[in-house]
Amino acid sequence: MTGRIAAFRAKDKTRFGVVTDEGIVDLTEIAGFPHLQAVVSAGALADVIAVADGRAPDFRIEDVTFLIPVAAPEKIICVGVNFPDRNAEYKDGTSQPKHMSLFPRFPRSFTGHGQPLIRPPENHTLDYEGEVAIVIGKGGRRIAAEDAYDHIAALTLANEGTIRDWVRHAKFNVTQGKNWDNSGAIGPWLVPFTDPAQLDDAHLVTRVNGEVRQEDDMKNMMFPIREEIAYISTFTTLVPGDIIITGTPTGAGARFDPPKYLAPGDVVEVEVEGIGILRNTVADE
Amino acid sequence: MTGRIAAFRAKDKTRFGVVTDEGIVDLTEIAGFPHLQAVVSAGALADVIAVADGRAPDFRIEDVTFLIPVAAPEKIICVGVNFPDRNAEYKDGTSQPKHMSLFPRFPRSFTGHGQPLIRPPENHTLDYEGEVAIVIGKGGRRIAAEDAYDHIAALTLANEGTIRDWVRHAKFNVTQGKNWDNSGAIGPWLVPFTDPAQLDDAHLVTRVNGEVRQEDDMKNMMFPIREEIAYISTFTTLVPGDIIITGTPTGAGARFDPPKYLAPGDVVEVEVEGIGILRNTVADE
Repeated sequence: MTGRIAAFRAKDKTRFGVVTDEGIVDLTEIAGFPHLQAVVSAGALADVIAVADGRAPDFRIEDVTFLIPVAAPEKIICVGVNFPDRNAEYKDGTSQPKHMSLFPRFPRSFTGHGQPLIRPPENHTLDYEGEVAIVIGKGGRRIAAEDAYDHIAALTLANEGTIRDWVRHAKFNVTQGKNWDNSGAIGPWLVPFTDPAQLDDAHLVTRVNGEVRQEDDMKNMMFPIREEIAYISTFTTLVPGDIIITGTPTGAGARFDPPKYLAPGDVVEVEVEGIGILRNTVADE
Repeated sequence: MTGRIAAFRAKDKTRFGVVTDEGIVDLTEIAGFPHLQAVVSAGALADVIAVADGRAPDFRIEDVTFLIPVAAPEKIICVGVNFPDRNAEYKDGTSQPKHMSLFPRFPRSFTGHGQPLIRPPENHTLDYEGEVAIVIGKGGRRIAAEDAYDHIAALTLANEGTIRDWVRHAKFNVTQGKNWDNSGAIGPWLVPFTDPAQLDDAHLVTRVNGEVRQEDDMKNMMFPIREEIAYISTFTTLVPGDIIITGTPTGAGARFDPPKYLAPGDVVEVEVEGIGILRNTVADE
């Protein structure tokens, strides 16, 4: 356990603090940073988490509203099709692609842990995609794959919620299916990245109403996270706070026959042991 | 003429001011806003431009470095294939698509007016796409097409520079071909949007070394700007400062046989009468 640090709202204020089993130690006024993104940018996650040592919790977990951990990252880049079984599901004769598929999402397309994913009135094909998200701590351009892990500050989870019908509105880009306000979630908190095993040995599970829908080992990724960082930083400079959402296993709702889309009242959980459980309900707008 | 207001660097400081034929009136210290994006967000473009009335220029145009007018927009959304002739060039049997293609670009993929577009060492298929860019002044969600123009604060121009080979690295999304650092440009300045004719009657021209490569009337767009705003705001909340790059006419370099990609020393100009000329050179990184 390297500590868990969350962004949240409580008592009408945006705060950040360390999440313990007993509650949340509020560090907003005492850690010397205006918000969690500034802590990441300063490379100070471990130092700030240490400030909470021995302090009593200020808030009960059930009394706060979790926010996405980095409020305004310069970039959120998602990696598409990235586990072999999932790719096979496209049933179009494609074998492993040569390059990864990438698409940006805007921060406002994500809500925090515990908040509802919003199903809009225009279309009801709201789907889940459980993923591991990495937060960049040290920026760079043309980062070598072997150095890539040095650039990761923290890990978190994402439910890369999608309005499936809108993903194919246009011939190419998935932008309009992937960017509905509050259609996805990031959280529940940041866990500092201190050991390659946190990623290399990670096992990712997505459950809907307790039923396992997606489950795979991160080591099965077609494009490992080291390669994602190397490839993305070839064309764009990564900066602290940037988020890469690293790709989802097979088993999204669209792949069932008939499809199993999300409906109001559903509970979706994305879990990696050592990071946590990102849990969201679903609600109509 | 409704005024031209630019973001720029001069004397080691980021500034903004009104561009006149005699030079630039620096408004940074006197207009009551920290930067041009804040002026846009406050809906104060006209008021701030009026502050320059009767003031002598502080800088000669050739002594400043132009920046992209909105430094850190929450979103830059580009519209793909949007003029009939251009679509026909894809020669794949597609007629007009039902929905527009959309892809985000990160601000760092754009440089300012007068700066070089950067051709990276990894790939030399740097291509131009001249476009009109709109800057959102009044935010909103599910904006009706007939109200859309009320949400535009200003117009500017974009050269939506592209590393063409990387656009098709992945099967779907164009992200990695459209987001090379400093591969495109936005500018030269903002012109407040006060009259529908500024868009409806606009004629867009792109020249390379003086040779016209792209030329069309904005009224020929397959998806008019009003519809772009309506469609995009269906899924995401537009906020002040957001930029929509509205689509390019036929004639990008990739469409020639052999292709006419940009090379160091080339000069690319994007022009709309009443907005200005966005001029950039090309340089190897």
